[in-house]
Order: sequence, then structure tokens, then C-alpha cells
Amino acid sequence: MFKFVTLYRRVDDEMKLEEFFSGTHLPLAEQLPGLRKSEVSRVTGKPGGESRFHLMYELYFDSDEAFAQAMASEPGMALIAALKPWDEARLVSWFFSHAFEEAVSRQL
Amino acid sequence: MFKFVTLYRRVDDEMKLEEFFSGTHLPLAEQLPGLRKSEVSRVTGKPGGESRFHLMYELYFDSDEAFAQAMASEPGMALIAALKPWDEARLVSWFFSHAFEEAVSRQL
Repeated sequence: MFKFVTLYRRVDDEMKLEEFFSGTHLPLAEQLPGLRKSEVSRVTGKPGGESRFHLMYELYFDSDEAFAQAMASEPGMALIAALKPWDEARLVSWFFSHAFEEAVSRQL
Repeated sequence: MFKFVTLYRRVDDEMKLEEFFSGTHLPLAEQLPGLRKSEVSRVTGKPGGESRFHLMYELYFDSDEAFAQAMASEPGMALIAALKPWDEARLVSWFFSHAFEEAVSRQL
């Protein structure tokens, strides 16, 4: 699947980040045509200490084409415009990817 | 679910990275007790250009406890030991998280 990943760095003003995420990023993403699933990951740490990341949000689409269509939609354009200042301020990292999931059937 | 994320940065010697990923990281991860699913994401770019990341590998467990048990296993300890030099060389970023997936039933 095509996956659009946004990683938020930890910031001093965590509330501002949370407000933007839940008030702008999330509702715009949920309006994207062709969105198949999404996943919010709340970062709890890293091996040996604290992570510099706060949360990750992943958006899944069937294909590159489906994502391109989503980005050409009104919520898609609004989403990129809203995230751009966060990227420019280096508060988020974002990237596109092709994701391959493998389920594990083996039991403990 | 508990999710252990490893992000590989792009490097000049991409073959070395791919060899480590497919020859060490992947086979050790697949031996972890309690692993529920995994996902490989091959980074294709970012809005407006090239990403500094090359790939992301995500490992899912039922709980913090299940992950702690996996890390205390022989493949778990070997995995952390194998990844540590990559982290110290700043070639990978890794973090723990609590992941919440949402399926989208809405059609286009």
C-alpha cells in the first residue's frame, strides 16, 4: 500500500502540538478521498532513554495514484498547506513510502 | 498495540544497508517471540523532493510486557546489539510507541 507518514518531534509546548494534531491534521486526513486506514503511534521512548519524537501518524492508500488523487482534493491541499509550516520549522518529518505488511501466525 | 519502529537514513552505500536489513535485522526480528505483525516501508520521497530516510521497519506486539519478553529472548538481545552501532552512527532512528489503527469503511 501507499503510506504517507508524518513524524512529530517533541516540543516544549506539547499542548500546541496536540491541538494542531487533533484539531487540524486528524480531521483533514479523515476527509481524504481514498483513505483506507490510518494509525496513530504515541511514542513512549527509545532503547536507553527518551525519543526526540512525540508521535507518528500514518495514512494508507491503495496506490500512488489514489494518494495523488487525495492530494489533489480540497482536504488534501488544505492538509499539505497546514503541515508545511511545521515541516519548515523542522517540527515534523514527513515521507511517502510503499508499505508491505506481514502477519505472523506463529504462536508463543 | 506496542510498536517498535526503526527508521533507516539514506546512505551512500545502499547495498550495505540492504544487506544488514535483509541479512540481520529481518531474520532476527522474525524470530522474536510474541511478534504479531511487521511492516516494511520503502521510502519513495517526501512532499517537494527526496527524503533523508531510506526505509522503515515496524514490529508489533500485543503489549509492553510482550515486547519486554521478546527483548529478553536470545534473538531480542541479538537484535538490539546488532542495531546499536547503527544507532550510534546515527544511521537509524528507533523508538517505542503505542499504536492505534483505524480502518476506514467509507468508499470513494
